[in-house]
Amino acid sequence: MAVSRDGLWFEPLTPTAYLDRAAAAHGERIAVIDGERRWTYAQLHERCRKLAGGLAPLAGGRPVAVLAPNTHVSLEAHFAVPWAGAALVAVNTRLAAEEVAYILEHSEAAVLIHDPVFDELVADVLRRLRRPPRCIRADDAYEELIASAEPAAHTPADECALLSINYTSGTTGRPKGVMYHHRGAALQALAVVGHTGMSPSSVHLWTLPMFHCNGWCFPWAVTAAAATHVCLPRVEPANVWRLIREERVTHLSAAPTVLSMLAYADEAGDGLTGHTVRVTTGGAPPAPALLRRMGELGFQVTHLYGLTETYGPAMLCDWRPEWDGLDAPMRARLAARQGVGTRAAVTPRVIGPGGRDVPADGVTTGEVAVRGNTVMLGYFKDPQATAEAAPDGWLRTGDVGVRHPDGYIELRDRSKDVIISGGENIASIEVEQVIMDHPAVREAAVIAIPDERWGETPAAYVHLHAGASATAQDIIEHVRGRLAHFKAPKTVFFEELPKNTTGKVQKQLLRERARGLPPLS
Amino acid sequence: MAVSRDGLWFEPLTPTAYLDRAAAAHGERIAVIDGERRWTYAQLHERCRKLAGGLAPLAGGRPVAVLAPNTHVSLEAHFAVPWAGAALVAVNTRLAAEEVAYILEHSEAAVLIHDPVFDELVADVLRRLRRPPRCIRADDAYEELIASAEPAAHTPADECALLSINYTSGTTGRPKGVMYHHRGAALQALAVVGHTGMSPSSVHLWTLPMFHCNGWCFPWAVTAAAATHVCLPRVEPANVWRLIREERVTHLSAAPTVLSMLAYADEAGDGLTGHTVRVTTGGAPPAPALLRRMGELGFQVTHLYGLTETYGPAMLCDWRPEWDGLDAPMRARLAARQGVGTRAAVTPRVIGPGGRDVPADGVTTGEVAVRGNTVMLGYFKDPQATAEAAPDGWLRTGDVGVRHPDGYIELRDRSKDVIISGGENIASIEVEQVIMDHPAVREAAVIAIPDERWGETPAAYVHLHAGASATAQDIIEHVRGRLAHFKAPKTVFFEELPKNTTGKVQKQLLRERARGLPPLS
Repeated sequence: MAVSRDGLWFEPLTPTAYLDRAAAAHGERIAVIDGERRWTYAQLHERCRKLAGGLAPLAGGRPVAVLAPNTHVSLEAHFAVPWAGAALVAVNTRLAAEEVAYILEHSEAAVLIHDPVFDELVADVLRRLRRPPRCIRADDAYEELIASAEPAAHTPADECALLSINYTSGTTGRPKGVMYHHRGAALQALAVVGHTGMSPSSVHLWTLPMFHCNGWCFPWAVTAAAATHVCLPRVEPANVWRLIREERVTHLSAAPTVLSMLAYADEAGDGLTGHTVRVTTGGAPPAPALLRRMGELGFQVTHLYGLTETYGPAMLCDWRPEWDGLDAPMRARLAARQGVGTRAAVTPRVIGPGGRDVPADGVTTGEVAVRGNTVMLGYFKDPQATAEAAPDGWLRTGDVGVRHPDGYIELRDRSKDVIISGGENIASIEVEQVIMDHPAVREAAVIAIPDERWGETPAAYVHLHAGASATAQDIIEHVRGRLAHFKAPKTVFFEELPKNTTGKVQKQLLRERARGLPPLS
Repeated sequence: MAVSRDGLWFEPLTPTAYLDRAAAAHGERIAVIDGERRWTYAQLHERCRKLAGGLAPLAGGRPVAVLAPNTHVSLEAHFAVPWAGAALVAVNTRLAAEEVAYILEHSEAAVLIHDPVFDELVADVLRRLRRPPRCIRADDAYEELIASAEPAAHTPADECALLSINYTSGTTGRPKGVMYHHRGAALQALAVVGHTGMSPSSVHLWTLPMFHCNGWCFPWAVTAAAATHVCLPRVEPANVWRLIREERVTHLSAAPTVLSMLAYADEAGDGLTGHTVRVTTGGAPPAPALLRRMGELGFQVTHLYGLTETYGPAMLCDWRPEWDGLDAPMRARLAARQGVGTRAAVTPRVIGPGGRDVPADGVTTGEVAVRGNTVMLGYFKDPQATAEAAPDGWLRTGDVGVRHPDGYIELRDRSKDVIISGGENIASIEVEQVIMDHPAVREAAVIAIPDERWGETPAAYVHLHAGASATAQDIIEHVRGRLAHFKAPKTVFFEELPKNTTGKVQKQLLRERARGLPPLS
C-alpha cells in the first residue's frame, strides 16, 4: 500500500525538532551552561529562532560557517543555521589559515560566525579570499543580530535535504566536504540518546569538539534528551574535573588521548565520588590500561567507532551483562573492540577479497563497510570521490578488521598501516594495544620501517607516564611475551606522539622521523 | 538540495530491522523466555524468517491475524508477518466470537494463527464466516510450518507501507481498524528504547497484551535494545512476582489496574530486593496511592499516554530531576499527569474553542490533539472516519485536558465523561484521583447521574482494599476536605468495577447500573 506523504502521519525528520520539543516539554530547565551564563530550553529555543531570522537574509540559502570553540555559539549554530535555510559548516578550529580559507571557498559559505579568540586567524583567512564571507563576531555583533531579528524556523519539506557539511581532516590532499542530511542526523541523535541512556536528568560535558562530525550529533542528541549542555571552550584537565564535580556531569565524549589526559591528571585524585559518568570514546580504540584506570576512577566507558562519513558513531561496543563477571583484562580486551552496528545503522560488513563477507572467526581480515540512513549523502562537489568511496553501494571505511565469533568487529589496522614483515602481516594496532598494557606506558604508536632482510619491521614510538621508566628492551620483551616474536618492535623510540587536530596520532610524521626526513611544513 | 532516494544513505525504515540487528549483534544472547523454552536472538531471527517464508504463499499479500496470549507466537508474528509481505492483525483475545469474526472479515485476513487455548473460540468464529481464513494452530502445525519453510524477509520499498491493523475496542459501534506503517513503528520503537532506558542488560516482562496497539510497539523496542522478552500468557500476581524475581526483570508495562493487582498481592511481600523495575503505565492515570505503593515496593513508574491511533504512547510524564526533592504526595501528583510529547512525536496541542491553543494556565480546558510520524495512516476502509478524526490535520484524541504552566498536559476527562452540575463542569477524573487517595480505597470511578435540581451530580463507584472498610459518608467527607464541595459525590456505591478487555473501567455499564437499567447483551 503506497501512500502519499501529505497525511497527518508524516512529518519530515529533522534534528532541529528536538529543540522544539525540549522547549515545549522542558522550557524552564537549564539547557546550556557556558561559564557564568545559563540559558533555559525556552531561552535557547528563542535565541536560535531569532538567530535563524537574522541569518536567513545574510545567507541567502548559501552555507553558514562557524569558527568557534565549544561555546554556546557552536551549539546555537546547530539549530539556527538549518532554521535559516542554510547548511552548517562547523570548521575545525585547529586548522591553519590556508586550510580554513580553502573550506570557506569550497563550501561557498556566505557567512562566517567566529569567536573573538580567532580574530587573528580570521584576519589571515580573509586576506586569502577573493570573495570573503560576511563575518559575524560572536560577541556584541552576534548578540545584536539575535536581539534585532524576528524569529524564524525554516524546516525542509524534504527530510533528505542538506543539513551540514563537515570537512574531513584528511592526512593527504585537500579536505573533502562530507554532506549530512536532516533525516540521518535525526535518526543518529535518537539512536545516540538510547545507547548513552541520556534523560532530562543528564548533564553532558562538551569535551568533544562540535566541529568533529557535528560533535557525533550530540548537539541534537543531548537536546533530544532535554539534558543540560555544559560548554567547554578548552579541554584542560583541571577545568574538566572541576566541572564534572561542580555540575554533576553524567555524560561526556572524547578521544582516548583526552581520556588519558584526564585519567592521569593530578586533579583526578580519588576520582568520582557518589556518581558515575558515562563516557563514549572513539577515534582510536581505548587501551586496556586506560579502560582499567577509567573504571577505577568511576567512569563507565563505551567504545564507539565511526567516520565523518557516518555522522560519527556507526558502531559501538554494546556491553553485554554476562561480561560483567569476567576479569578486568578480559573486560578491557572486549571493550576495546569496535563492536556492532548502532540501532540506527544497517549491520556493518567486513568485506574480504572477492567482495565476500569474511567468516566470523576473529582471524580473517577484510575491509569494514557500512551503509544506511546514517551514511553521508556524498562529498560536496565531488561526485567522483563519492562514487569511489562506495563502489558497490557499501561505503568503504578504509579500516581493516575481523569479525569475532560473537559478531563483534575488531579493527586490525588502517589498510595503509599494515606492516608486512618477512611476508607476514602485522596489525600495528595489535602491537600498540600490547605495548600500552605495559604499566609504564601512557601511549604508543607502531609503524613500519624499511628493513633490508625482512622488507619491513615494526618500530614503536612510546610515551611513558610521568615519573615512569622502561627501556627499549623492556618493551620488546613485554611484547614478545604476549605476541608472536616477529610482531615485536625491533626499534623503540621514547617520545611524545604527534597528533593531528582531532587527536589522532600522525603516523605519517613518525614515518618521516624514522627515516630521518625533515617534517613537511 | 532535493535528492533521489537511491543512495547508499537511504534505507526504508522498518521495525523488523531491529531483529536483523539483534541477531547480528547479540545472536547468542537470550531473546525469548516462554515457560521452559528459551531462544537466542539468532534462533528467533531464523524462526521468524522461516515463518515468513511459510506464511508468504498462504497470505498472498492479504493480512495475517493472530489470536494468542503473550507467547512467543505473538512475538514472532510481529516480525514474521511483515516479512511475509502481509499486514499483522493482532486480535484482542478477550473479544466475543462475533467481534473476532467481524475483525477477520473486515480485515480480509487470509490466515489466522491461533493458540490452542482458543480452539473453542476459533471454532465458533469460523462458523460465522462465509470465507474463513486458513487456520494455523500454534502447536505442531505452527512448528511444522517453520521447520519446512525456506527463510524469507520481505522489506517494503516504501517505509510508509502498511505494517499492521489494530482494531480499537470502541465502546460504541463496530471496532475500527487503525493502520500502522513501518516508519511510524520504527521511530516509535527507537523513542521507546530511549525513554525507558532499555539495553542488552534489560529483561522485559510481557504484562501488557501484544494485541494492544502492538504492545505499544514494545515487541520491536525490546528487540531494538537486544533485551530479553519474558513471555507471560496470563497475568497472575503469583506468576508475575515469581518471574520478576527469578528472571531479574528490569522493565514491564501495564495498565494501572494490573499494577494495582500486583502491588496489593500477597506475593508482593517486601517488594523488590536488590534491583529496580522500570514500569511504564497507561490507559488511565495511576492513582497517587498506587504510585506511592509501587515506589515503596521498588518500582519506578513512568506514566504514558496515547491511543491505538498513536502506536501507543504519544506522550509521557518525562521525569524532571528537580522533582526528586518534593514530598511524596506532590511527586505522585506530578507523575500522574499525561505530560509531554515523546521524542518521536510532534508537540501535542490542547485545542480550545475556536481552534486556538489553550493558555498554559493549568485551568483552561481543551481537547488534546496530536500529529506526526507516530500517528496512524488512517482507519482501514473507512476514509470518512479518518477524515473526521483529524478535521484540520490534527488528530483529536477525544480527551479533555489542560496545559500546566510547566508545559505538561493533564487530562481532565474524556469529553463525554464531564459531569455538569449546576452549570459547573466537574472532571470525573479529578474526583476519582482524590477518592483513590483514601487509604481504604483500591479503585474508584465517578460518573454523572441525573439530578432534578442540579442537572447532574457525581456518583462514585468504589472498590475497597481487602479487609478495609469505609462508609459512603467517609468517602464524601474525604472529597469535601480536598475539593470544592459541589465536586463531592452525592452517592457512593461499594462494588468491584467492570472493565473492558483492555482493562479500562466501563463507565457506560456503571451509568446503566446507576439508572437501574439492565445491562446490554
